[in-house]
Amino acid sequence: MTKNPHKEPVITLTAGPVQAYPRITRAMSRPVHYDFDVYFQAFYEAVARKAARALRVEAPALILQAEPAVALEAAAASLISPDDVVLNLASGVYGKGFGYWAARSAKQVLEIEVPYNDDIKPAQVAEMLQRHPEVAIVTAVHHDTPSGTLNPVGEIGRLVRDHGGLFLVDAVSSFAGMDIHPEDCRADVFITGPGKCLGGAPGITLVTVTDRAWAQMEGNPACPSASVLSLTDWKNAWSQDAPFPFTPSIAEVNGLDAALEAYFEEGPETVWARHELTARACRAGVKAMGLELWAAREEIAAPTTTAVRVPEGLTDETIVAAMRENFGTIISYGRAETKGKLLRIGHMGPVAEPVYALVAVTTLGGTLNRLGYKVDVGGAVEAATAVILDGKG
Amino acid sequence: MTKNPHKEPVITLTAGPVQAYPRITRAMSRPVHYDFDVYFQAFYEAVARKAARALRVEAPALILQAEPAVALEAAAASLISPDDVVLNLASGVYGKGFGYWAARSAKQVLEIEVPYNDDIKPAQVAEMLQRHPEVAIVTAVHHDTPSGTLNPVGEIGRLVRDHGGLFLVDAVSSFAGMDIHPEDCRADVFITGPGKCLGGAPGITLVTVTDRAWAQMEGNPACPSASVLSLTDWKNAWSQDAPFPFTPSIAEVNGLDAALEAYFEEGPETVWARHELTARACRAGVKAMGLELWAAREEIAAPTTTAVRVPEGLTDETIVAAMRENFGTIISYGRAETKGKLLRIGHMGPVAEPVYALVAVTTLGGTLNRLGYKVDVGGAVEAATAVILDGKG
Amino acid sequence: MTKNPHKEPVITLTAGPVQAYPRITRAMSRPVHYDFDVYFQAFYEAVARKAARALRVEAPALILQAEPAVALEAAAASLISPDDVVLNLASGVYGKGFGYWAARSAKQVLEIEVPYNDDIKPAQVAEMLQRHPEVAIVTAVHHDTPSGTLNPVGEIGRLVRDHGGLFLVDAVSSFAGMDIHPEDCRADVFITGPGKCLGGAPGITLVTVTDRAWAQMEGNPACPSASVLSLTDWKNAWSQDAPFPFTPSIAEVNGLDAALEAYFEEGPETVWARHELTARACRAGVKAMGLELWAAREEIAAPTTTAVRVPEGLTDETIVAAMRENFGTIISYGRAETKGKLLRIGHMGPVAEPVYALVAVTTLGGTLNRLGYKVDVGGAVEAATAVILDGKG
Amino acid sequence: MTKNPHKEPVITLTAGPVQAYPRITRAMSRPVHYDFDVYFQAFYEAVARKAARALRVEAPALILQAEPAVALEAAAASLISPDDVVLNLASGVYGKGFGYWAARSAKQVLEIEVPYNDDIKPAQVAEMLQRHPEVAIVTAVHHDTPSGTLNPVGEIGRLVRDHGGLFLVDAVSSFAGMDIHPEDCRADVFITGPGKCLGGAPGITLVTVTDRAWAQMEGNPACPSASVLSLTDWKNAWSQDAPFPFTPSIAEVNGLDAALEAYFEEGPETVWARHELTARACRAGVKAMGLELWAAREEIAAPTTTAVRVPEGLTDETIVAAMRENFGTIISYGRAETKGKLLRIGHMGPVAEPVYALVAVTTLGGTLNRLGYKVDVGGAVEAATAVILDGKG
Repeated sequence: MTKNPHKEPVITLTAGPVQAYPRITRAMSRPVHYDFDVYFQAFYEAVARKAARALRVEAPALILQAEPAVALEAAAASLISPDDVVLNLASGVYGKGFGYWAARSAKQVLEIEVPYNDDIKPAQVAEMLQRHPEVAIVTAVHHDTPSGTLNPVGEIGRLVRDHGGLFLVDAVSSFAGMDIHPEDCRADVFITGPGKCLGGAPGITLVTVTDRAWAQMEGNPACPSASVLSLTDWKNAWSQDAPFPFTPSIAEVNGLDAALEAYFEEGPETVWARHELTARACRAGVKAMGLELWAAREEIAAPTTTAVRVPEGLTDETIVAAMRENFGTIISYGRAETKGKLLRIGHMGPVAEPVYALVAVTTLGGTLNRLGYKVDVGGAVEAATAVILDGKG
Repeated sequence: MTKNPHKEPVITLTAGPVQAYPRITRAMSRPVHYDFDVYFQAFYEAVARKAARALRVEAPALILQAEPAVALEAAAASLISPDDVVLNLASGVYGKGFGYWAARSAKQVLEIEVPYNDDIKPAQVAEMLQRHPEVAIVTAVHHDTPSGTLNPVGEIGRLVRDHGGLFLVDAVSSFAGMDIHPEDCRADVFITGPGKCLGGAPGITLVTVTDRAWAQMEGNPACPSASVLSLTDWKNAWSQDAPFPFTPSIAEVNGLDAALEAYFEEGPETVWARHELTARACRAGVKAMGLELWAAREEIAAPTTTAVRVPEGLTDETIVAAMRENFGTIISYGRAETKGKLLRIGHMGPVAEPVYALVAVTTLGGTLNRLGYKVDVGGAVEAATAVILDGKG
Repeated sequence: MTKNPHKEPVITLTAGPVQAYPRITRAMSRPVHYDFDVYFQAFYEAVARKAARALRVEAPALILQAEPAVALEAAAASLISPDDVVLNLASGVYGKGFGYWAARSAKQVLEIEVPYNDDIKPAQVAEMLQRHPEVAIVTAVHHDTPSGTLNPVGEIGRLVRDHGGLFLVDAVSSFAGMDIHPEDCRADVFITGPGKCLGGAPGITLVTVTDRAWAQMEGNPACPSASVLSLTDWKNAWSQDAPFPFTPSIAEVNGLDAALEAYFEEGPETVWARHELTARACRAGVKAMGLELWAAREEIAAPTTTAVRVPEGLTDETIVAAMRENFGTIISYGRAETKGKLLRIGHMGPVAEPVYALVAVTTLGGTLNRLGYKVDVGGAVEAATAVILDGKG
Repeated sequence: MTKNPHKEPVITLTAGPVQAYPRITRAMSRPVHYDFDVYFQAFYEAVARKAARALRVEAPALILQAEPAVALEAAAASLISPDDVVLNLASGVYGKGFGYWAARSAKQVLEIEVPYNDDIKPAQVAEMLQRHPEVAIVTAVHHDTPSGTLNPVGEIGRLVRDHGGLFLVDAVSSFAGMDIHPEDCRADVFITGPGKCLGGAPGITLVTVTDRAWAQMEGNPACPSASVLSLTDWKNAWSQDAPFPFTPSIAEVNGLDAALEAYFEEGPETVWARHELTARACRAGVKAMGLELWAAREEIAAPTTTAVRVPEGLTDETIVAAMRENFGTIISYGRAETKGKLLRIGHMGPVAEPVYALVAVTTLGGTLNRLGYKVDVGGAVEAATAVILDGKG
């Protein structure tokens, strides 16, 4: 291994890439197989079916061979035709960003934008759809990771379906960390991956597509083909009888397989519950220290990421560096608009365990004290612990 | 691990994905790190520099987060502007295919096409460039994998440079299996990856870009940005002080690191020599069985893949299936135009060892006999062995 | 990894330690667990039960935390009391060696010794038992690895049981490579491990003990306790409710688990069949080259090791070194009395696949030719291939 | 992997087996090599030399192929002759236990025993040696793990050397966690392993032996040979030119190599410092909760294990189970005499990082409160944090 001037972090509490489960990284070291051999072809189909089971859809899931940002760009390019009016919902950096991709393909992009610590209200969407019957596609981020906030995609999805539109949902950092699936939000395109709450590595993506959305893509004259931006190229690639459009990322497929296996073995409900409890304990600790949650209302704070405002007089860089230096724990910065304004503690995969709420609270609190911003760490630990013990019933 | 109705192959002798070195797959199981943490940032820069050393260029290599086909599409999109006339050299399926990508971006694509068992002659290129002074970019595949044949990119590169054009070379399945580097062929864009002769997994790509090519991209109004198709997005991403445009595939970077490490530890010259010797022994065995090499002339047969015509009266599917069934060895089919016409025995990475030429010859020969096509396996083994022993001097 | 002046072998065809299955070595990288934690305790019991299932006995298997040689020494020390007369059967180096361990504990050790290329005849045992009614314990090696020969432990076991004695069987290098289990040979103590035909690593041992043998040990005043030489210390250690006498080798237990899992997944009969076919093909090739099998009669040649006499005029060291140098394949020397006289080609675990018979034949034959000892490699390959194709039916 | 009714622990804070470094478990998945092949032989010698460097001795270290308890038994059997009077120093369960092994070989065993929360005083040893000039061998445990207490082996070693005796030291759970090496305590036999502070797996042992001790063993008529209890069998096994007495545990040797590599890469002084700081922070937290350290005086509390008295009215089993249930953290019980009386928090290898002192304090404290034994967790965290921040200077 290449020499590194820096010490490895001791505990990674980020919003992704996350500290992966050892069983998943171990699976990534399985032998590499030839993608045209029957062994790999049967394996790939089995993984696509297993993913469908996790996503609670019928058809084998679409597996794209790159990280979810690529899949989002590809979905925009494939789904949105030059005749389409798109309504993009922006409650954060990722939602806002998707609008730019949509704009490359759409006739017009309408947008509802709210402050990046708030959520999109179904009523806003309803009103917009009423005013703009021409909207064909609505796009939303479920958990806008750079803000750590959730949007009510379940309710929005019903509105979109009633409107007759297609709904595209980015659930990259919420799926498998809470109870959200394509059909829960009537998503026609639903995008997620193993690198967040499933506790795997980034580098591969899961997508579900409804028949309506496939029809739209197949009718879209601008839908890419023979391209990494094409979803249709991969439509039938799950089948052991169909060839791959280009070489799949074998090791990532192996990791995905192990991620799904771990998810089923533990039980989805159990996995969601520990994400929720960890986040709740973490927020209790953070509030007990007198710090301010970034989310405008706690009910929209994600169970997979706790975003905290950077305390007055300090910078995110100083805090992250001091936390690493003193305790070896690392957390995420904000991103783009939220960079510098907040800190993010991830609760995803293996660190979605209540004890890591205590790790976060004690090491963030200790760091703030060290930097001269006085907080009551003892009280914070007690508040977080009370939540945990209560949650363990 | 998911149950599989098929038995794992015993020995994989394909032209990619290849049987990877255990030390590389093991590296892919390293812990996943946060891409914004100083540890990963310093590691990534070190890998980019190490790749540059392997590629024998100055600037840290560009690492793209998907398999090489994506990088080729991205390179076409980034490099070729709407004003450019491109000369595409097609001596096989991959060369031909690149022309389609080029055509999406270029003003015009000229092409020299030769039969897919032959190579492009420098004289053809010289003549074409003379006839078309407007050619700004020339594109070539060094080893057109579906044919197992090489093009003389060294000589062609000199012609392109003299012409003042930019030269884009796909060296995906030749680099690290023989003595080829960007500067050897004056390539302005040179694309390869760890999934072939470096003996790693597919899913990540190395690209080198000259200053002239960066200038071209920066002046190209159609060069993608905020896109998986953008090379410029990643231009500075190697630096530990620069952010990543999107999340890198952490596990693939770990594998790449180990692949490069193994390459240096063994010594590039030693690695090339065993690829060459294995291929030479394999060809000797194949010829001794009376089979026909696909390559029009043996000197253009790649040292990393031996392509053999499917014997009269048999099909590639039958042979591959019977070989797997009887001996557990697998080899590659042809692809697109060459599918059905040839079989490919890969000599890449860990199986670029002379003993695997014997494995190929004995199991292919035994299979043909089994299928009723009589060949002299004994003579073939002796011919291959003679080459090996001679090569071991 | 520590630098090594030698190149790693390309293919290992030894009689142990053997080239392990990747899934087993991967399992050895599972996280290390605390041996007093309920998780590990439940896991250990499950592995002991799984081993019993593979061994086709009722009681959970005894797992000893060192390689089988240690277990053999411990079994001698635990089972044989100072009042016991032991009949030791020596048809090879390992059988002979066990007599020395027996002699440390026994009142007297009788021995039947045959040339080390031959097997013990049941009639010899019958006669000895009749002449020596005082024999309480009979000890035998099923596959005497340094000779590559089998003893008829099934028939001998019946004689011992009729005689009323206890039977101790070393099946280290035959179990899982052929149809042999404790009850097949009425073994009271049966010793094997994952490091041979199960294709795992050395460092841990499986032992089955009948109630009669436990009673003998419990009545043996010299049976060690609080000692690595004690079997009784570990008698109940399989139970998740019992403590371990000393720390188990966690990683080896993980490897053992994976080895058993692989064995069941493939199916024992399938595993034995490919060991048998590989050995048969190998012997056919060896004979076709005019080389002499070490075994006095081919029917006692083990399906897990092919022992071949060193050809006149050459030495084992020269051959092994030249084979490694020219082809990267390695095979085993003899050991003690058989060292210098024979070479051993292992067919164990992942290399118990017919294609490796071809590898053995071509690279051994090529090496002999290289060294000036002329053999017909072509004919050998044809002979071996005929066996394989015939075996594949 | 075998199904398990229990959930894996989230964080393991035990006194061994410990949570291993991923790079070490990863190394245990390296391919298995044949022990008679030059590659493995050269590797083994390199590891023995690397171990010597870590132990700061000249001669390559002796590597025994089982966990340290076996090595201790073997050392007693090999070193102590039937004519020897041994002085055994017992300040805990392990020290006491060694006396039993010594008694099997010695003419007589004298003993100094102190309460198991105290240490042996050099003056006691001096007086005993003066009274018993016939003492030939003195045996001591540096860190008696079941008590978490240290003995002053440095000073004792000087007395033994002046007396002309041989000194055997068990440093299994202190070496690599603090500044202790064979020559620091003039140990003639010094035993340790990778499974504690080096953060590896149990299953292999390192031993250093002085020339005086080798001479003693070679002159000992009762020294075992051809036995797992023999140290002399392995004396020259480090050399690539010498054979192994029995098969080494290949995977464990691979793990040991990685453990030593990690130790050197980080720097021994750095490794010791984080063990010390973690333990000091942990003790500060424990005391701030009003709990009682087991050690009679804090200066004899080991930097690698913090032993805490079980609070009045509770049992160790209840606490350990509740801590696991509520927080997923696990700690060690006592052992034999100390079982039921204390709890042990390990600071070894990867968890010898200050943040884990916070984990220990918050989850132990939270558990005690949950069980009705009220402690001030907040104050404890603040006390521990103050130590950490102070230590980070």
